[in-house]
Amino acid sequence: MTDTTAITSEAEIIAMLAPLSAGASGAFGLTDDCAQFSPRPGYDLILKTDPVRAGVHFFADDPPEAIAWKALAVNVSDLAAKGARPVGYLLALSFPDAPTKGWMTAFAHGLGAAQTAFGCVLLGGDTDRAPGPLSIAVTVIGEVPEGTMVRRAAARVGDAIFVSGTLGDSGIGLRLHREAREGRQELRTRWGLTEYQTGYFIDRYLRPQPRIDLAEVVRRHASAAMDVSDGLVKDLTRMCKASGVGAVIDSGLIEWSPAMVIVIRQQPELFSAILSAGDDYEILATVPPEHCAAMPPAMHRIGTILAGAGVKVTRIDGTEIAFDKTGWDHF
Amino acid sequence: MTDTTAITSEAEIIAMLAPLSAGASGAFGLTDDCAQFSPRPGYDLILKTDPVRAGVHFFADDPPEAIAWKALAVNVSDLAAKGARPVGYLLALSFPDAPTKGWMTAFAHGLGAAQTAFGCVLLGGDTDRAPGPLSIAVTVIGEVPEGTMVRRAAARVGDAIFVSGTLGDSGIGLRLHREAREGRQELRTRWGLTEYQTGYFIDRYLRPQPRIDLAEVVRRHASAAMDVSDGLVKDLTRMCKASGVGAVIDSGLIEWSPAMVIVIRQQPELFSAILSAGDDYEILATVPPEHCAAMPPAMHRIGTILAGAGVKVTRIDGTEIAFDKTGWDHF
Repeated sequence: MTDTTAITSEAEIIAMLAPLSAGASGAFGLTDDCAQFSPRPGYDLILKTDPVRAGVHFFADDPPEAIAWKALAVNVSDLAAKGARPVGYLLALSFPDAPTKGWMTAFAHGLGAAQTAFGCVLLGGDTDRAPGPLSIAVTVIGEVPEGTMVRRAAARVGDAIFVSGTLGDSGIGLRLHREAREGRQELRTRWGLTEYQTGYFIDRYLRPQPRIDLAEVVRRHASAAMDVSDGLVKDLTRMCKASGVGAVIDSGLIEWSPAMVIVIRQQPELFSAILSAGDDYEILATVPPEHCAAMPPAMHRIGTILAGAGVKVTRIDGTEIAFDKTGWDHF
Repeated sequence: MTDTTAITSEAEIIAMLAPLSAGASGAFGLTDDCAQFSPRPGYDLILKTDPVRAGVHFFADDPPEAIAWKALAVNVSDLAAKGARPVGYLLALSFPDAPTKGWMTAFAHGLGAAQTAFGCVLLGGDTDRAPGPLSIAVTVIGEVPEGTMVRRAAARVGDAIFVSGTLGDSGIGLRLHREAREGRQELRTRWGLTEYQTGYFIDRYLRPQPRIDLAEVVRRHASAAMDVSDGLVKDLTRMCKASGVGAVIDSGLIEWSPAMVIVIRQQPELFSAILSAGDDYEILATVPPEHCAAMPPAMHRIGTILAGAGVKVTRIDGTEIAFDKTGWDHF
């Protein structure tokens, strides 16, 4: 049974999270003001902070395990795209109201599951109460062998464009999750999705899987990379802009999940929205021609880097797809 | 004249902050998703994240320069108390509404002034818009020679207790700042403060000065240390608890600012509130007897670590002072 007693002190929260710092001697069991971290010689540290907030990145009443997982996953995803291995993280929690013990227990479980899956350890952090939505600010630390971080700004003309996994699932998951929370199932019915397929989409939204499995291949073979978190077209546009190049994508080469194929068949006009949906947490990488053969099956070639500027997305027949909105804007 | 045009994109904010990353090659001019940091061999990294929020740590209409300064200062303060030197920081900004260009320019100036004063550089971060108060999450990175971080949990029986600077000024500054914002001056009149004295207190609240000047002496001579941010008694109690010891403080040995002496004379009953006010950002350190002579004039000996538990504060005549509230609780 869930413990609905309210947490009454920061010390209680620290005690519940302290087991997550086991294995990191520099976390001092979360009893100190700062964390100490001793990087391995010969490695660069890669740092990222990307806070998530209720009402923006998740719903306040989402399962606490999923909220915790997502808060860590979205940060680890950035590391993976840089070719880095996550080693530790700091966690700053801001609660509008004191959470219950049951909520905190579930949150700690979710965080524990995520850090075990991603291979990193809680180093320290901060907890307070402040008005506004629940906010979870993770700062993640990763490492790469010295000088090997994969940059965003290094795509070169002639490189092939690869993307991992399947795109758009999380965007559809958000729509299905929202209607399920409101007790509706119009979209699910319109698309003719089974319970399993609906669950698949919602899980992609709630529990994104950062591609740490691909970090090494990206580090060894990609000229440039970043994670796809704000929509493929928007993120590729950013990469091209930073690199001073252009790109063309053949939308016919993009890999879709079996469930997504059903959605697109039922509602083909969703196609451009799917391509510009956020929360994918896949890796977008440019790969020099001589390295393309080294790409694993999880990485799909979808286009080419060109001279010039801008990103063009074509249909199978070569005609161009226009976008009203290329992706998620945080601002 | 202040530019009141609204900022319309994250890119605009990044462009305004990018100059602050000059000198950190691993910040890539804020054009990448992650920052790369290459620590010096023979050094441990010290990490801290302590977000600040409008309505809790500052007022939303405080000068943007002061908000920026404080956001960085409160984090650097923790590093100083660990004996560490700040080297870089990540910055996650969350705006309820788009700031104006004038506001962002002033904020960037304040941040620039702070990082120059503290000796660190902006490495990266994130900006988004979310409901709730303006939130600024700084994660600061410091370094100490390997194995020399000063712990919180290492105070020993017989150690002298030192505290830097003068206490309580910021707490009085908050009261004066609040009444000035509301167009009142009752407290100022009651205490008979000059404009200069009032300004002194408010500045201590708005622009705390982390004691980086004392980091090295603390690292060389303190057995345990932490910054005083939630009130002397509360923070010393935490240190004693973590170290498994008790403490006695002679309140007659605490150093007060000249302006504070005036306030205490006018309203002696404020004494315990002053001792438990937060936002001091001074350093609390325990020092073994043989190291006491090495303490600089900025560090004042105020008490002794004892066997047992709990913190006792005495008057000059040896009687004990009772506290209703020992300090600021975040929760």
